[in-house]
Amino acid sequence: MLALVLEGRPTLRRDHPEPRRRAGECLIEVVIAGICDTDLALAAGYLAFHGVLGHEFVGVVREADDARWVGRRVVAEINAGCEHCADCLDHDGHHCASRTVLGIAGRDGVLAERCVAPEACLVAVPDALPDEVAVFAEPLAAALHVLDVPAVAESDRAVVIGDGKLGLLVALALRAADKAVTVVGHHPEKLALAAARGATTLLEADAAALERSPVVVEATGAPAGLARAAALTRPRGTLVLKTTIAGPAPLPLASAVVDELTLVGSRCGRLPRALAALAEGSIDPTPLVSARYPLAEAERALAHAARREALKVLVRGAR
Amino acid sequence: MLALVLEGRPTLRRDHPEPRRRAGECLIEVVIAGICDTDLALAAGYLAFHGVLGHEFVGVVREADDARWVGRRVVAEINAGCEHCADCLDHDGHHCASRTVLGIAGRDGVLAERCVAPEACLVAVPDALPDEVAVFAEPLAAALHVLDVPAVAESDRAVVIGDGKLGLLVALALRAADKAVTVVGHHPEKLALAAARGATTLLEADAAALERSPVVVEATGAPAGLARAAALTRPRGTLVLKTTIAGPAPLPLASAVVDELTLVGSRCGRLPRALAALAEGSIDPTPLVSARYPLAEAERALAHAARREALKVLVRGAR
Repeated sequence: MLALVLEGRPTLRRDHPEPRRRAGECLIEVVIAGICDTDLALAAGYLAFHGVLGHEFVGVVREADDARWVGRRVVAEINAGCEHCADCLDHDGHHCASRTVLGIAGRDGVLAERCVAPEACLVAVPDALPDEVAVFAEPLAAALHVLDVPAVAESDRAVVIGDGKLGLLVALALRAADKAVTVVGHHPEKLALAAARGATTLLEADAAALERSPVVVEATGAPAGLARAAALTRPRGTLVLKTTIAGPAPLPLASAVVDELTLVGSRCGRLPRALAALAEGSIDPTPLVSARYPLAEAERALAHAARREALKVLVRGAR
Repeated sequence: MLALVLEGRPTLRRDHPEPRRRAGECLIEVVIAGICDTDLALAAGYLAFHGVLGHEFVGVVREADDARWVGRRVVAEINAGCEHCADCLDHDGHHCASRTVLGIAGRDGVLAERCVAPEACLVAVPDALPDEVAVFAEPLAAALHVLDVPAVAESDRAVVIGDGKLGLLVALALRAADKAVTVVGHHPEKLALAAARGATTLLEADAAALERSPVVVEATGAPAGLARAAALTRPRGTLVLKTTIAGPAPLPLASAVVDELTLVGSRCGRLPRALAALAEGSIDPTPLVSARYPLAEAERALAHAARREALKVLVRGAR
């Protein structure tokens, strides 16, 4: 089958072996996949991943142990835990030490005609939700997860640093939760998408004038964003970290310790919450779609996603 | 008067002007002062402080607006807030934007024959407490402050990275709160002081074998400590940051974000809590005293405190 395979560099394979479904797993035909900055980081060597790239998708189940899944449109939780450890039993398995992660660690991803995922990871997509909306379930779940930080949930406002895909989704998530949101970024046309949903926007060059905020979300995707975000966080405030990059980021200790900041790493969220927000229409991610490519042009799609001006690049499955 | 004055470099002055007591302030004769790593950092240029060094002390009030203070033995809260802002009214003023900090920012310190401090900052020392114990009130308050982090208070164990003065005081504070404590350090003779209070101890070289902990306190005083401490913190765990140094420290984002760590900066604590712990004897800091110098030899005392093997160096006042 067609697949975008990372083997040193990302390469489109026309004869990649079909994925093999094991017991408990489903075979899924990928309808649309989305490209995430993590895919770009993996392509650059992050986590030393080898295999089919991609973890954001909507698809249709073709084979499953439980026949009721067959034919259903689904998205999938990307973390597949062991289901036996304390993290899997007491939490969501996102920190299971032996987890595989779709298209990121130990498990082939979704930039392919077909993929497999554990049945336990599947979430059915409401019929009314278009594919191009449902494909945002995974990144939107990650964005909504900032609301699981108590200080964020309790605050009536927040500053988001970064106007990329994730920063904008976080801004939309916070707006949908009725927070006053300020987005600091570099791209007027990207900031406009947040402004259209009621956020105040500010170019990075003007951020020095901003009053320090009790809640800041760092979503720049760059090592230097951490110090900038810390400088914008009020003493005793909370800084949520969303940037996952390979290298270290310089943290000014004199700021973090003297100002007694709380920094909270935040990764994946819950798909049902994202699907509910999408279904009720409180968050519309479709203005973030920058381009659409067929799977046969997945290499070009990846290159497009790496462009400075790009937001979400979608890849249509082969069917 | 005699004073250790930082003017580019720390210099003992024999004719330093007497401190001038303003309304609301007390004139205090310093009995014993302690040297903190922050004094060494300030001497190296941290915060661009100029003036009399030192912020840990016990002294006797000589002049005050309220005559009841005169003659009393005291320690002093080092942060002097405006008493009007939200932080001063709702909290303890530790983050008042216009605060001065004794011997650290905008206010002369205590490595002198006499100092002044706001009456509102004074805390009376119980009569039974020896001077050499009471002088630990400020650093012990900072150590006990880690217990104000909810995850620390709730945990039955913690790992402390760093066997310097602050790391050991944190270890003693956690032991006094009945936590199982593991201290990771470089100096067998320093680790022995924690072991004597029931802590498990480990040389840094052996730390890789340590199971990751739900609660870790970083008190190494070095930029590289942050990454080491993050690596020892369990996913979803809490890492308390106690190191205040001028430069940035590299934070591995792939650890902080993927493992969803919570990092909490922690600075000053409450003196009455520290005095209570010292008075009841649940914490005995005196084994940490490495050396005693008269004020006239304060430069030598500072040099001694900078030695690798040194713990707390005390400076006796001139009386």
